[in-house]
Parts: sequence; C-alpha cells; structure tokens
Amino acid sequence: VPNFRLTLSYDGTDFVGWQRQAQGVSIQGLLEDALAVLEGAPVTVFGAGRTDAGVHALGQVASVALTRSIDAATLRRAVNASLPASLRVLDACEVPDGFHARFSATSKSYRYRIWNAEVLSPFECRFVWHIPSPSLDAEAMGEAAARLKGRHDFSAFQAAGADTRTTERELFKSSVSLGDAAGLITLELTGSGFLRHMVRSLAGTLVEIGRRRHPATWIDEVLASKSRASAGPTAPAAGLFLVRVGYETADL
Amino acid sequence: VPNFRLTLSYDGTDFVGWQRQAQGVSIQGLLEDALAVLEGAPVTVFGAGRTDAGVHALGQVASVALTRSIDAATLRRAVNASLPASLRVLDACEVPDGFHARFSATSKSYRYRIWNAEVLSPFECRFVWHIPSPSLDAEAMGEAAARLKGRHDFSAFQAAGADTRTTERELFKSSVSLGDAAGLITLELTGSGFLRHMVRSLAGTLVEIGRRRHPATWIDEVLASKSRASAGPTAPAAGLFLVRVGYETADL
Repeated sequence: VPNFRLTLSYDGTDFVGWQRQAQGVSIQGLLEDALAVLEGAPVTVFGAGRTDAGVHALGQVASVALTRSIDAATLRRAVNASLPASLRVLDACEVPDGFHARFSATSKSYRYRIWNAEVLSPFECRFVWHIPSPSLDAEAMGEAAARLKGRHDFSAFQAAGADTRTTERELFKSSVSLGDAAGLITLELTGSGFLRHMVRSLAGTLVEIGRRRHPATWIDEVLASKSRASAGPTAPAAGLFLVRVGYETADL
Repeated sequence: VPNFRLTLSYDGTDFVGWQRQAQGVSIQGLLEDALAVLEGAPVTVFGAGRTDAGVHALGQVASVALTRSIDAATLRRAVNASLPASLRVLDACEVPDGFHARFSATSKSYRYRIWNAEVLSPFECRFVWHIPSPSLDAEAMGEAAARLKGRHDFSAFQAAGADTRTTERELFKSSVSLGDAAGLITLELTGSGFLRHMVRSLAGTLVEIGRRRHPATWIDEVLASKSRASAGPTAPAAGLFLVRVGYETADL
C-alpha cells in the first residue's frame, strides 16, 4: 500500500477548518474528495494539525494511504487540478508505511501576526489581528514570550472543554519580532505539540502584556494558575499560520 | 475651498476598476459616496491613474475639493470607517488649490508580478500572472526591459481604440528582478506617464522574450513598428500594481 505525505498551503479564510464538518467546506473534505476520484473509492486523509476555521497554513502536512500505484508528482498535479486556488499541494512524496502526519510529528511551528497601526493594509486584512491602538509594547511581549520556552503545563492556554491525556508541552522557540512593514508584530512558536487554541490564547495573553495591563512576568503566574480564566482572550483565527511540521529524518 | 490629497491602497480583485461605471463597485464610486456623506452634497474625486478592473494599488493618489472645513486625519478616519477593508485611505493631507491628482503628477511607478513555478501559492493567486512553464529567461527579459528606458513613442503598447494626444512617454526606470519567493519575477517601471494597457502590454511582450520566442533586441523592433499587432499579448490585470505617484515637491 503506497503511503503519501502531502505538504499543503492554504488561505483558511473561506474554510470551516481542517476537519470535515456536516456543513461548509473543509480542507480535509476537499482533499479526500479529490483523492477519492484518483483512488476510485473513499479515502481518509490525516492532517498533522487540525487547524480551526480561518486559520492559514504555509506548511501543513497530511498523510494518505492509497491502494493505487501512482507517481508522487502526478498525484500532486492531479489533486491540485481539482482543488480551489486557495488550497495547494506544494509537495507530495511517497513515505514508509508507518508514517502518519499527526502521530509521527515531532514538532510544529506556528506564526501569529498582529497589525498594530491605525490603518490596516487591504492586502493584510485576512491575515492579521488588527489592533489599531494603543501602540503595543513589543519588547515586553518578547520578554514574556521568552519566559514560555521549555517544558510546562500549558492548561491555562487550552480551550475550555478540550480533552487531552496530558497538558504538558515543550516550546523550543518562543519569540516576538517586528515585521518589515510598520506596525507588524509577529509571534513565532515552535513546540513538541500544541493544545487546542494554545497559540491563540498565548497571543491574546501576550497582547494583554503589550497593552501594559500586566508586566512580562505575569505570564509566569498565568502558567502556574493552570486556569484558562486567568489568561488573556483567544486571539482571532485570521492571524494564525501553521508554518511547518517537523518529523524524524528517518520518516522522510 | 480646502483641497485634499488622498493616498490609497486597494486589492483590485473585486472592483470594476478606478472609474465609476453603470454596473459594479468602483474605487472612485466608493470614495465619492463616502465623501458625499461628509460634504452633505455630491463630490468628484480625481484619481492619478485610472486603474482597470482587477488592478491593485499600493499608493494610488486621489484629489478632492470639499467646501466643508475638516481636519485631514478626521477625514481619513471617517472615510475609512465607511469603506470596505479591501480599500483604504493610507494618508490624507490638505494641499494647495491647484493640486490635481492626475494633472499635477510628474511620474508613476508600476509593478508587474509573474509567478513562474508549477504550484501557485494560495496567498499569491490574486496578485500574479501564473505562468507554470516554461521556466522564463528572466535575464533576457531584464535586458529587453532596460532597452525601454528613455523617451519613446510607445504606440505599439497602447490598447486598441485609445485616444491620446501623444503616444510619447519617458521611462526613468525599467527593470526585471527575481523575488524572494522561488518563481517570482517582478517588472518595475517608473515613467512620466503611461498609455492605456501599456504596462500590461509591455509585460506580455517581455514574457514572449522570456519564453525564448524572440531575442531581447526584438523589443526595439516592436517599439519601432508602432503597431499593437507586433507586440505580445496584454498580460492579466491581477499581476499589476500601481505603486507610487510622484509630484513636484512644491505641490506636496
């Protein structure tokens, strides 16, 4: 059974998210429908990250097992030909049987983008959280972000009602930078894994610090509280990008 | 009578172009409608460049005379509040009576973007001309672009049926560069003025050279022919951006 790894990019604005839903267009649904035509039978596509409605991807990864033998480049072209322009297979390659986009992943990188200027560029309106004012303290946000590095119980940053075995995750990278464009503030996170809404809750909490409502060290208290109520709001989906999924070299 | 200069940015995808039309949403129409509310009477907005349907702007300039006295920053905020997110007033300022966005302009800069790779990024699909293959000879395109610099009769690159006093224009800058993203080829033009469809005809002609159908020097023959039929096709609107409009310092 040939097993394929697909690297995907999408503008999430018009999708209900990764996961197939009863209503609306999902990334998983589009891929499964396109691949079912090639396979001549229903297929199941597994995604590394189940991105929510409105969340974008530069390098989402999916895996799918097909019974039909097909060249990876042909697969990519055939699938792209039946997808909307807002969803693309950037790369397809055959991988060992054991490879599973989600369970084989060893790291994920997310980017969260904030537009902190009065006027929002028309080219950015679907890809940022617009905070026209006040001018955020990006330095304090960066200080707080750096304090998140390492292994922690991130339950304070988990969506209410989520059900996971463990809420411990390790962040390898957590930093804030100013973009080329005036007003652009970018949060970059790489971790062993992420809880549901974790990046957006972290972004919302860092913005509270950026607004000078709390000092950078407040992030330690929020972490220690293990309570979602103590953290900041969940930042809007539009600003979030799944940038990259990491795997052991042996899997690739 | 206070006279204002507005600097505008827009994603042209969903507009019928700059100019007000009987059908569809135009940039001029949106601005005139928003400003008429402030003025309490109909107003006329003049644009520096009458961009076509689907053409984008990073720095279009418009001028409008109002009878009502209003602070420029308040004007910008009020107008932006009633415009869609795909059209923004980046800047508003009061200018001398004689200033006219179109007639006072001394130069315009346009950018034309080509995506020359098999897979088109979902984030670029509204902002490029996608040429999946062959791999274009960007060096030859750059050579041909450089030959366009200076004062020429550009009638070979004018839309059929256009009616202008003179078809002579001067190009101060004409160059081709490779973008950060693999596959992105960018044409940058700055000139005293541009004929209707001139940038898109030039882009279409340079692509013929990029496809190796003609050598770089062919551009001289096309120019000399003064015949639209001898040039390449008109490139799609989606790849075109009005980047900047220049004025005499005295007008600003």
